[in-house]
Amino acid sequence: MSKGLPKRSEDYSLWYNELVKKADLAENSAVRGCMVIKPYGYSIWEKMQAELDRMFKETGHTNAYFPLFIPKSYLSKEASHVEGFAKECAVVTHYRLKNAEDGSGVIVDPEAKLEEELIVRPTSETVIWSTYKNWIQSYRDLPLLVNQWANVVRWEMRTRLFLRTAEFLWQEGHTAHASKEEAMAETVQMMNVYAQFAEEFMAVPVVKGRKTENERFAGADETLCIEAMMQDGKALQAGTSHFLGQNFAKAFDVKFATKEGGLDHVWGTSWGVSTRLMGALIMAHSDDNGLVLPPKLAPIQVVIVPIYKGEEQLNAISEKAYEMMTALRKVGVSVKFDDRDTHKPGWKFAEYELKGVPLRIAIGPRDLENGTIELARRDNLTKSSFDLSSEPIEVMIPRLLDEIQQGIYEKALNFRTEKTTEVNSWEEFQDVLENKGGFVSAHWDGTSETEDKIKELTKATIRCIPLDQKEEDGTCILTGKPSTGRVYFAKAY
Amino acid sequence: MSKGLPKRSEDYSLWYNELVKKADLAENSAVRGCMVIKPYGYSIWEKMQAELDRMFKETGHTNAYFPLFIPKSYLSKEASHVEGFAKECAVVTHYRLKNAEDGSGVIVDPEAKLEEELIVRPTSETVIWSTYKNWIQSYRDLPLLVNQWANVVRWEMRTRLFLRTAEFLWQEGHTAHASKEEAMAETVQMMNVYAQFAEEFMAVPVVKGRKTENERFAGADETLCIEAMMQDGKALQAGTSHFLGQNFAKAFDVKFATKEGGLDHVWGTSWGVSTRLMGALIMAHSDDNGLVLPPKLAPIQVVIVPIYKGEEQLNAISEKAYEMMTALRKVGVSVKFDDRDTHKPGWKFAEYELKGVPLRIAIGPRDLENGTIELARRDNLTKSSFDLSSEPIEVMIPRLLDEIQQGIYEKALNFRTEKTTEVNSWEEFQDVLENKGGFVSAHWDGTSETEDKIKELTKATIRCIPLDQKEEDGTCILTGKPSTGRVYFAKAY
Repeated sequence: MSKGLPKRSEDYSLWYNELVKKADLAENSAVRGCMVIKPYGYSIWEKMQAELDRMFKETGHTNAYFPLFIPKSYLSKEASHVEGFAKECAVVTHYRLKNAEDGSGVIVDPEAKLEEELIVRPTSETVIWSTYKNWIQSYRDLPLLVNQWANVVRWEMRTRLFLRTAEFLWQEGHTAHASKEEAMAETVQMMNVYAQFAEEFMAVPVVKGRKTENERFAGADETLCIEAMMQDGKALQAGTSHFLGQNFAKAFDVKFATKEGGLDHVWGTSWGVSTRLMGALIMAHSDDNGLVLPPKLAPIQVVIVPIYKGEEQLNAISEKAYEMMTALRKVGVSVKFDDRDTHKPGWKFAEYELKGVPLRIAIGPRDLENGTIELARRDNLTKSSFDLSSEPIEVMIPRLLDEIQQGIYEKALNFRTEKTTEVNSWEEFQDVLENKGGFVSAHWDGTSETEDKIKELTKATIRCIPLDQKEEDGTCILTGKPSTGRVYFAKAY
Repeated sequence: MSKGLPKRSEDYSLWYNELVKKADLAENSAVRGCMVIKPYGYSIWEKMQAELDRMFKETGHTNAYFPLFIPKSYLSKEASHVEGFAKECAVVTHYRLKNAEDGSGVIVDPEAKLEEELIVRPTSETVIWSTYKNWIQSYRDLPLLVNQWANVVRWEMRTRLFLRTAEFLWQEGHTAHASKEEAMAETVQMMNVYAQFAEEFMAVPVVKGRKTENERFAGADETLCIEAMMQDGKALQAGTSHFLGQNFAKAFDVKFATKEGGLDHVWGTSWGVSTRLMGALIMAHSDDNGLVLPPKLAPIQVVIVPIYKGEEQLNAISEKAYEMMTALRKVGVSVKFDDRDTHKPGWKFAEYELKGVPLRIAIGPRDLENGTIELARRDNLTKSSFDLSSEPIEVMIPRLLDEIQQGIYEKALNFRTEKTTEVNSWEEFQDVLENKGGFVSAHWDGTSETEDKIKELTKATIRCIPLDQKEEDGTCILTGKPSTGRVYFAKAY
């Protein structure tokens, strides 16, 4: 197959869009800003979901499901929350269509107007806290540790597949606690879960940090985040965990009888990751030949392609292939045997490269004679011959997959290290942003005004105040005012 | 805990509603007709999803995701489809809120009106077939076997938790085929998958059949279904599988190059089950003490409750309990040890009865001495003492769970057999419907008019023309016209 992908170095943005489509991950739908997640793309998302869901359950959370629709008045109950979301809400106003009297088709029935308009959830804090009011009476009902897998809608004007779409899939955790300390510990814990998932499964290194007030979630007292670095030197916010204080508890009057006999508002958190992670996964690792998938999230980890002429050769190769498949499946490796006679091996090789299958095994008649297979790694595009008598395949392949997983992570980590620059002057700051990109570690005076001004001048935002920030006296790159530690700036998705 | 459930025999409908709420399965939300699925209810739904998803994948299907919104004009492209759904569509007309000028809160921004209104999907045939147009060019692209797990919205006026809600969760399979025969085979296959799931996992026996034209899916040439019998003698449609013919392919111009070099419209199917299955599960088995869950879908299969006075006794019992838990978990049994000191054993017993946990183990100091446990079965409410030396617990418990699963199924099957009556006259028909309920097997003249008339007179509908219908000459119970086989009538949910 001809891949016809643009080169990353020539047009990164076009490369990304084309790759998402050509690798059968997603495409735009007829509805502006809404995507179709295609089977191959969805199978990667399913693997992400399975691991995240396991991690949520291991940390004591259970899943539930809350309504898609939010009464308009609910959204308004938390002042900064409605401020943050009102401008991008899809609004349901009617509940019926009818045939137009002029026979021109169906129209919205003006008589079927809702008494109160409904918002399609952009996030579920309001509908969930209105429910928690009935679930929580006493400290015995706490903590309440709930997660939801759902679709949400934010009417974005400029959309990009996976990165910014009007509808997207995500999970949103919503927890309620008896104390500020416990809620804060939960906020930190879930940021750590996200970081662990990003690094161990997606093979994407992340910086953990706090958001500045400007970048905080609408309704939160504190937003923790993980920030990843893409191959074009732009940052991508990969997950956020919010400490909500008592804001939503106050807005929805959620109080509990304390152990000590008092009555207090509940403390809350919320945290989420979305199909945006798909964008991060693609942009962090893939190359001009197509996707590069970390083995832990690859729907197909190994593909076996027979090289043959005639049925007799195919039969002999198939026998070997089935034997290997059985051995590999027993140790949990997902493997596909592509014996289609409609496509040539070269076409198949290109296809699996495009789809990011970590390991490709080719077997020809000579391999059968010699007891070898040809092994091709997707991550570094190397090929080698493997002697099957030297080591059981069910030992070698899992080890190699681990090595690839680790290698992809290290490559991304080295890239990020190389793309992280400490600067100490405004000139340097501008120069790095313009010519090198990446994270720029710099001093900032701590004010929103300065942050806004820097964004206006350079398009760079403060990605986070890193959790491992070192105390260091310095002066703000823009204003020269004193600062006690560096923050990470970057242009971002 | 006090269950305070109404009795089934006194008010079945109230019993159901109260059970759903008290067992923490679901509750009504602030949005009319939309429910909150609570953690315990959702964990049962997750078990259903996992099994169904496995069965879909084993039959060659993959998951994907299509947009929540459907342009209004799409819905109209298939004439009978829009006819069927137009009256219950939630319509998005605007995409932004703004602050009211009088300071009264947020209002819908009249300037943010959509050019074309969007329907919140009531089902996804239209948006999916508009996508398939680009995915299908040749017979090589077929069959296309896709499933989606999603939320859908149908603006129902009279709603009931799980059974009929404005928003519900479901899966919808949408497949495309090169021939009529293949599409029909798929339609039959998926009905069989649903029947197998209902009987093997839900322990609910079902009748497989065809719907009459009146009851067919809007846009289908044929609808196959599985019909279950509830304890109040009403039928419940538990799943449908539709043969769409070329209707949607024609509406969305989906053609393919045939193997023979021609060009033809694609043949389609769609099939779905929803959170309605939760209603069926509850109503088929539960009793006046609460839920009765088949072990294969029970989130907790075994609960261990310690009976103790003082810490020393609790420690000794805990040791035994952990030993048993380890052994049971190794063989895949989900088990919970409830050692909370905030509730008495009797309270816990009642709680786990309400929640439908299939097996309860109680251990007291005397049990420890004697090497016994007390075993209580939820399905038949029997208790017995089990001598731990007589058989390894990891053998006994799984066998007992299988026995319970089978027993629940047989009880439901016997009930359905008892509630299925063949009648041969209009008087008999009315009498059975009124005084006995259940399925009424009767002759019908095959016309929609007669079916409508019978519905009008008795509220009973034809649930299905059973697939195993025997050829038998008879006369229609209403019109006396000739008929060649019996169909199943019932009042239904």
